Amino acid sequence: MIEVAVLGFGVVGSGIVEVLDKNSAEITRNAGQEIRVKYILDMRDFPGSPYERLLVKDFGIIERDPGVSIVVEAIGGAGQAFDFARRTLSAGKSLVTSNKELVAERGYELLQLAGEKGVNFLFEAAVGGGIPVIRPVAQCLSANKISEIYGILNGTTNYILSEMEKNGAEFSAALADAQKKGYAEQDPTADIEGTDACRKICILSSLAFGKHIYPDFVPAEGITGVTRDDMQFAGSLGYRIKLLGRARAVQDKIAAYVAPHLVSFDNILSGVSGVTNGVTVRGNASGDIVLVGAGAGKLPTASAAVADVIDAVKHMYAKKQISWQNGDKSDTVAPSVLESSWYIRTNAERSKIEREFGEVVFAESAPGATAFKTAVMSGKKVNDILARGINALSLFRVMGDY
Amino acid sequence: MIEVAVLGFGVVGSGIVEVLDKNSAEITRNAGQEIRVKYILDMRDFPGSPYERLLVKDFGIIERDPGVSIVVEAIGGAGQAFDFARRTLSAGKSLVTSNKELVAERGYELLQLAGEKGVNFLFEAAVGGGIPVIRPVAQCLSANKISEIYGILNGTTNYILSEMEKNGAEFSAALADAQKKGYAEQDPTADIEGTDACRKICILSSLAFGKHIYPDFVPAEGITGVTRDDMQFAGSLGYRIKLLGRARAVQDKIAAYVAPHLVSFDNILSGVSGVTNGVTVRGNASGDIVLVGAGAGKLPTASAAVADVIDAVKHMYAKKQISWQNGDKSDTVAPSVLESSWYIRTNAERSKIEREFGEVVFAESAPGATAFKTAVMSGKKVNDILARGINALSLFRVMGDY
Repeated sequence: MIEVAVLGFGVVGSGIVEVLDKNSAEITRNAGQEIRVKYILDMRDFPGSPYERLLVKDFGIIERDPGVSIVVEAIGGAGQAFDFARRTLSAGKSLVTSNKELVAERGYELLQLAGEKGVNFLFEAAVGGGIPVIRPVAQCLSANKISEIYGILNGTTNYILSEMEKNGAEFSAALADAQKKGYAEQDPTADIEGTDACRKICILSSLAFGKHIYPDFVPAEGITGVTRDDMQFAGSLGYRIKLLGRARAVQDKIAAYVAPHLVSFDNILSGVSGVTNGVTVRGNASGDIVLVGAGAGKLPTASAAVADVIDAVKHMYAKKQISWQNGDKSDTVAPSVLESSWYIRTNAERSKIEREFGEVVFAESAPGATAFKTAVMSGKKVNDILARGINALSLFRVMGDY
Repeated sequence: MIEVAVLGFGVVGSGIVEVLDKNSAEITRNAGQEIRVKYILDMRDFPGSPYERLLVKDFGIIERDPGVSIVVEAIGGAGQAFDFARRTLSAGKSLVTSNKELVAERGYELLQLAGEKGVNFLFEAAVGGGIPVIRPVAQCLSANKISEIYGILNGTTNYILSEMEKNGAEFSAALADAQKKGYAEQDPTADIEGTDACRKICILSSLAFGKHIYPDFVPAEGITGVTRDDMQFAGSLGYRIKLLGRARAVQDKIAAYVAPHLVSFDNILSGVSGVTNGVTVRGNASGDIVLVGAGAGKLPTASAAVADVIDAVKHMYAKKQISWQNGDKSDTVAPSVLESSWYIRTNAERSKIEREFGEVVFAESAPGATAFKTAVMSGKKVNDILARGINALSLFRVMGDY
């Protein structure tokens, strides 16, 4: 029997305890032995909870108990969670986390420490909730040179964009609706400004390319600038607007960023709507692999975290070899070097647009606004042309094979 | 350094050798050591091939060489391939295969033998080509009770159906086109009759539910009965026609089969077109996970097989615990117990249809044919009603949440 401790008894933490309980038959079969929750760390009291007797407030109890071999961190943030994570690994226990901020900010350090201590540090739940992403990239595509990874990595913004498209709502109304339904937090900044997606593309990028890409290196643009008109114009051109996190190899460097993109109706990710997430990985042998599913939520996230616990049990004496080197800003290049078509909404005259951009495709026009798709060019070039007196009300990259 | 032997130097076998060569830097980094092909077994000669010096015709050389720790089988079929597979494992070597027939027919025996010998038997490439499917089901969803798994498991038939829809072609013309382009074999029976998809759903079903489901237990209907009219009628109802392999838990038994289905435009799999494959797995914690990518082809298949080789290297002394029990016919139930809506094309009168079926949804009508979607009922019930004098020219299940 393996004894685990769960740190944090919020949505994810309680989901992990619930899944371990509810699916114990399957879990025991797959892990080869029973997995039991010995402690739940939380500063709050949960009177009447069936797990009340497991609750502790002092991490030291867990840290010092040699019976606990795996700790599951579900506190969030990179402050106290980092301290507990570090102490868990230092104590020779394996660590499982669903905390993307922790992995994006301190992943390299923690992987190093896990390596030194010969224990596992696993974080399938930190990206894409219940979708298998970390393992497919780390293991299933291990025979590939990965050239690119991109995806819909945030359910809140995808829900808002889907509602804007479906109901012709403006951003502010769709956000209010998402908040009412519990899909967006009262302070939605981290979601709508792209911070959350940025952390996730950092993790995927580090994994795919072998160097830690920190959020500081990765420019993130959210969805607050996407309008109902943009949705309609994009639709008339054959695209949906999706917030993508993207990382692409450019020679021996990485161009990584988060921004709204036009995604073709032919691309599987254009059909990923609502709170669902989707990730595309491009390997030189596998071609494009697309992974789709619930990107957040209590049980899907718990499903991924418990799968990591099972994997840690099965590899108790043979560390899973996820690792990457440290990285710095010089490992990245600005995304403006990447070429693509661009979507531009403007109030400039069509004749002026055609004079400056040459051949373009205009969206079905509406009174007072013009939108078009450019030929393929770098971000730098499109900005140079716009500087000649075209005022871009919206400027989004068109995702495609360039 | 690890030395491997590749059995069969056809499309897949040569792809495996090519990927091991071309991506050797990534593979060495991920495996933790160099992987070298020592032998290639093939009865044919390949004069001038850069690998000519590795070619052998006697399996005994590989079997007796203690330096070879992993054998990759890419011969196909369950005859000689089974003999070599058995001898590989008996000799204490790990076995990797892309051969779905071998795994579907003899998987249980080979897994047992691998278990006894303490070596790995891995077959990620046997289902879904380059798409990570086996590992996500076996590992990433290991914390789940899986209730259902279904997917587009055959690229040839998906290409034919996609062409029929896109170009309004009849089946025979689309098949001829697929043969011309190399997507269908000159004898296309195994693909178009559903035999290939059947083997793959057997493997997925065995993995998801823990008992070997043999192809003999699984009724397979191919796509020869799908017409251009069906495509159009389905489209007017909001569906695409896809050949699905499907396995669903019914109490403690499994209903597994292969048949054409109507798949809603809202379902990610409806957007999986051409030779691409897609698989949906439904876990009680994860929800629906969809995995999409190249389901066949030299490099994608090789990508999956080489990932298995890397995994075998990393687990040289800690066997990967894929396993399932043996199964027999009594572990399955006929798919006719499953309820769903049904699509029916007929020349019966609308009044007769409404009298017998009650409320139905008619497709946009065309001269001389009527098509409609029924309420939700079992396959047994739909056949009972049809027996009252409605001649079904086509009868397909509608995929959905029932």
